[in-house]
Amino acid sequence: MTTTGRPSPALLPTLGGDYYTSAAVFAAEQRHVFESMWFCAVRAGDVGEPGQFKKVQVGRESVLVVRGRDRMLRAFLNVCRHRGALLCTQPEGRVRRNLRCPYHSWTYGLDGTLVAAPNLSALTEEGGAGIDRRDYGLVAVALREWLGYAWVCLAEDPPSFEDDVVGAAAHRLGDPRAIDAYRIDTLQVGHRVSYDVAANWKLIVENFMECYHCATIHPELTRLLPEFAGGRAAQSSVGHGAEFGSGVDGFTVDGSPGFPSLPGVGTGQERRYFAITVKPTVFINLVPDHVIFHRMFPLAPDRTVVECDWLYAPDVAATADLSRSAELFHRVNEQDFDACRRTQPAMSSRAYRAGGVLVPAEHHIAEFHRWVVSRLGAPIAPR
Amino acid sequence: MTTTGRPSPALLPTLGGDYYTSAAVFAAEQRHVFESMWFCAVRAGDVGEPGQFKKVQVGRESVLVVRGRDRMLRAFLNVCRHRGALLCTQPEGRVRRNLRCPYHSWTYGLDGTLVAAPNLSALTEEGGAGIDRRDYGLVAVALREWLGYAWVCLAEDPPSFEDDVVGAAAHRLGDPRAIDAYRIDTLQVGHRVSYDVAANWKLIVENFMECYHCATIHPELTRLLPEFAGGRAAQSSVGHGAEFGSGVDGFTVDGSPGFPSLPGVGTGQERRYFAITVKPTVFINLVPDHVIFHRMFPLAPDRTVVECDWLYAPDVAATADLSRSAELFHRVNEQDFDACRRTQPAMSSRAYRAGGVLVPAEHHIAEFHRWVVSRLGAPIAPR
Amino acid sequence: MTTTGRPSPALLPTLGGDYYTSAAVFAAEQRHVFESMWFCAVRAGDVGEPGQFKKVQVGRESVLVVRGRDRMLRAFLNVCRHRGALLCTQPEGRVRRNLRCPYHSWTYGLDGTLVAAPNLSALTEEGGAGIDRRDYGLVAVALREWLGYAWVCLAEDPPSFEDDVVGAAAHRLGDPRAIDAYRIDTLQVGHRVSYDVAANWKLIVENFMECYHCATIHPELTRLLPEFAGGRAAQSSVGHGAEFGSGVDGFTVDGSPGFPSLPGVGTGQERRYFAITVKPTVFINLVPDHVIFHRMFPLAPDRTVVECDWLYAPDVAATADLSRSAELFHRVNEQDFDACRRTQPAMSSRAYRAGGVLVPAEHHIAEFHRWVVSRLGAPIAPR
Repeated sequence: MTTTGRPSPALLPTLGGDYYTSAAVFAAEQRHVFESMWFCAVRAGDVGEPGQFKKVQVGRESVLVVRGRDRMLRAFLNVCRHRGALLCTQPEGRVRRNLRCPYHSWTYGLDGTLVAAPNLSALTEEGGAGIDRRDYGLVAVALREWLGYAWVCLAEDPPSFEDDVVGAAAHRLGDPRAIDAYRIDTLQVGHRVSYDVAANWKLIVENFMECYHCATIHPELTRLLPEFAGGRAAQSSVGHGAEFGSGVDGFTVDGSPGFPSLPGVGTGQERRYFAITVKPTVFINLVPDHVIFHRMFPLAPDRTVVECDWLYAPDVAATADLSRSAELFHRVNEQDFDACRRTQPAMSSRAYRAGGVLVPAEHHIAEFHRWVVSRLGAPIAPR
Repeated sequence: MTTTGRPSPALLPTLGGDYYTSAAVFAAEQRHVFESMWFCAVRAGDVGEPGQFKKVQVGRESVLVVRGRDRMLRAFLNVCRHRGALLCTQPEGRVRRNLRCPYHSWTYGLDGTLVAAPNLSALTEEGGAGIDRRDYGLVAVALREWLGYAWVCLAEDPPSFEDDVVGAAAHRLGDPRAIDAYRIDTLQVGHRVSYDVAANWKLIVENFMECYHCATIHPELTRLLPEFAGGRAAQSSVGHGAEFGSGVDGFTVDGSPGFPSLPGVGTGQERRYFAITVKPTVFINLVPDHVIFHRMFPLAPDRTVVECDWLYAPDVAATADLSRSAELFHRVNEQDFDACRRTQPAMSSRAYRAGGVLVPAEHHIAEFHRWVVSRLGAPIAPR
Repeated sequence: MTTTGRPSPALLPTLGGDYYTSAAVFAAEQRHVFESMWFCAVRAGDVGEPGQFKKVQVGRESVLVVRGRDRMLRAFLNVCRHRGALLCTQPEGRVRRNLRCPYHSWTYGLDGTLVAAPNLSALTEEGGAGIDRRDYGLVAVALREWLGYAWVCLAEDPPSFEDDVVGAAAHRLGDPRAIDAYRIDTLQVGHRVSYDVAANWKLIVENFMECYHCATIHPELTRLLPEFAGGRAAQSSVGHGAEFGSGVDGFTVDGSPGFPSLPGVGTGQERRYFAITVKPTVFINLVPDHVIFHRMFPLAPDRTVVECDWLYAPDVAATADLSRSAELFHRVNEQDFDACRRTQPAMSSRAYRAGGVLVPAEHHIAEFHRWVVSRLGAPIAPR
């Protein structure tokens, strides 16, 4: 090593490499991050009809998000209370009235209550001498809808959704109502891609938070947003959105015109790109005519699935040619995830044991690192 | 969780989920169950000729079962005493006189004694100054034949075969001589299927022991055995066999006639199905005209290979069309193993951390759970 | 077990099986062997031009070997000092002047110094108030050239190359200048095969060190070198080379003539085969007209990649038909590696828990075992 150990105020330290490779750190993150915080699970419109369900992985748990006959969304652990079979093994589907375990036919209402169990005559509504069916309902998981997504929380005592989720967007945009202008809950999924990324979820967050890499790996994006060529991240100052370059007609792969601005978009939002990180696993990208919404599913220390939705006004999603519009961020995604994939193997090198450095344009990532360390509670000794 | 913690006498607790996923529990089972008990290894007729051998996995060990020139079956660890190469890598085969290690040509008789080693002139019969060839024979494993199968035991001091194996069948059937009526050792393998099941071996045992699931997943079987539709397991009371329904002509996939009853089958055994669990890894299914015999090979906490033999009278095995007969239990097997496969992933959910429940028709499984816990000796802290 | 425990002076004990399967032992070997000793990495001629590089795995590290503009070879950890991306992901390539990280464009000279980092105006030559570029150069790795190969050492304080590497060959041949006669650095790679061997690297070393197996698995080799049929290893006595049999015209698969002897080969080297083990991972095979050079890359307790080069005089490599010449040792390699593959699984058997035995023709392997144990430092309790 040739370092002298003399710190420079221009460079801040990162987390050490073990944070990105250790099974112990990832286990702590599953417990204290993914299973403790609000986790964005599914697009509500994907489970639009009563009896429709989707199955998602949240931390170590398989979770069902189900639309009830009362049209309410609910979430449950995907496990029969009898002998533990998975209720649903398909990623999505629709049932008529009930969720029936295909092993022994224990049957649950769409609200999770046990409604039938073969040969259990003692099953009662009210307890007493028999088996109270309320005692053996599906294990419920907290659920909130916002921006047209179902966010779930596996904690016994969930943290404040307003502070942690709504507040993150408000803080980033500098205005609690700014995101409402896009009316994201009314938009439709026009395009969706699922990326399987051989990298730790935190590398993907860090990549999204900074734009120091933009000049190197994002030629299309920096053509549209000239300030990105200078390395300035849209997220490094409150309320800032990157302005489209002159001559750029829309947020498309070649700068050609996009679609009409969404109805509520205000003057400060025209011709600008805003990026929001909602910890732990959501990125929201706002442009005048659509929204790009990322949900991460961390599966292992070195594997993360990222599902990306391109959201448009319903008439645009239904009838327009979205290809040049969606192609832009698809390329950005591929460029970013390739960078993360080539960073993951270096995390286990002795050259990165004590971590790397953050240049001034990346200094805001240090706050993310402090947040990670504080969430994990007791110090982790990964190796 | 919505449980109140109030126990109901109708529901008994199961083992916790960790028992089905933990590497520590599986390692203890390898040591204290599969490598300590009598383990049903191979059909004796598959190694019928002198020099024929089969290689099987017993716990962590590769074991050779070999027919000697004296026509006796013997079992050995499949490891050369010189530098440790596997003697046999093929699953089965036949040698003329000796087992020769293909690395350095150390050569063993079919009784395991070292008979030749190149350049070792000091090799002697009787010890003394040289190398006593008896000191470097293959490591022998105890072997017993019963029901036409070779059962091996890797323990230094094997438990009583009569108590543990013969006794299990006698206890189940309520009569020590009942199983002899089928003369299973004289039958021939008419059909064989090997199933690779992504589930813990105990889930497969529990599934075999109860019939609460029969109405849900076994339409063919419950058509033949109407009492199974009511959830009653053939194994829940001593000596009981499930009676064929009226209109059922044989134990075939469509209830059409099977074959003549086996010669020794008595009146109490006609038109009845008997099921026996011989712990840890054998299931025996008796019907008047054939026997279905399962051997499990647990390979990992979440993987078990099950080899199933359909055994018939020699003339039937040789000449009859077995398809409708064998198809019945092949479907039952697939239905059961699919249920086990969908149960395995739920074992690691927090919803099953403390286990599930046994309904009255499953209460006899609690005894199996107590037996498992007692075999493992010191308490295991899996996570 | 039938052993009596009575030791025989003709048989020495080996290492126990755990040494070949334990993750803890392999981790200790990575630290105390592969990352601490001189490790033969690449053929220098494969990186012959300025800017050419090869990427190799040394222990747990990805290492770049790069030819500078001054034509010197240097080695670096393949990790950017900024945020840790791999500089090079291809196994080899060529750059013009610099190694540029494809994530954020931090750029390093071919001598490893940081020469550019976007937007880092504070980057200075001499320290002071800014960022000293010397502090953020690539992490350098020691490198020596010998026999036309680049040998690297990841230790902070490398051991003596002369003692450990040059000395090993001199000791084996009984003459410090004997190997120089072959002028291996001037030879060209005429043929190369990479073998992926599912076996521990020590099994491959032990196999190479003894010839007790030759009569059993190497028919072609023992036809050429009759003394090998007797089990005598070329490496068991200092300076000894195995003599070609009468009627053998060359070291080819069928004993047909090879090529003219290499210019410097002396009379004691004609018609003889010499084998050298340079611990930890190199085998050198010398015959009058060519050299067969093995480099091992241990990747896991049970997986080792072996790269084998056949080296010839430049005019022979360029124009001659090498097929019969190269085919001989390719067959020997396949025969040896198959033997190692079938030995690896037996290492985890209880029959090999305390190890096996070394016959007199293998007694020199005991020294290798003592060396392994001494390198690992504190006792390892693998299971």
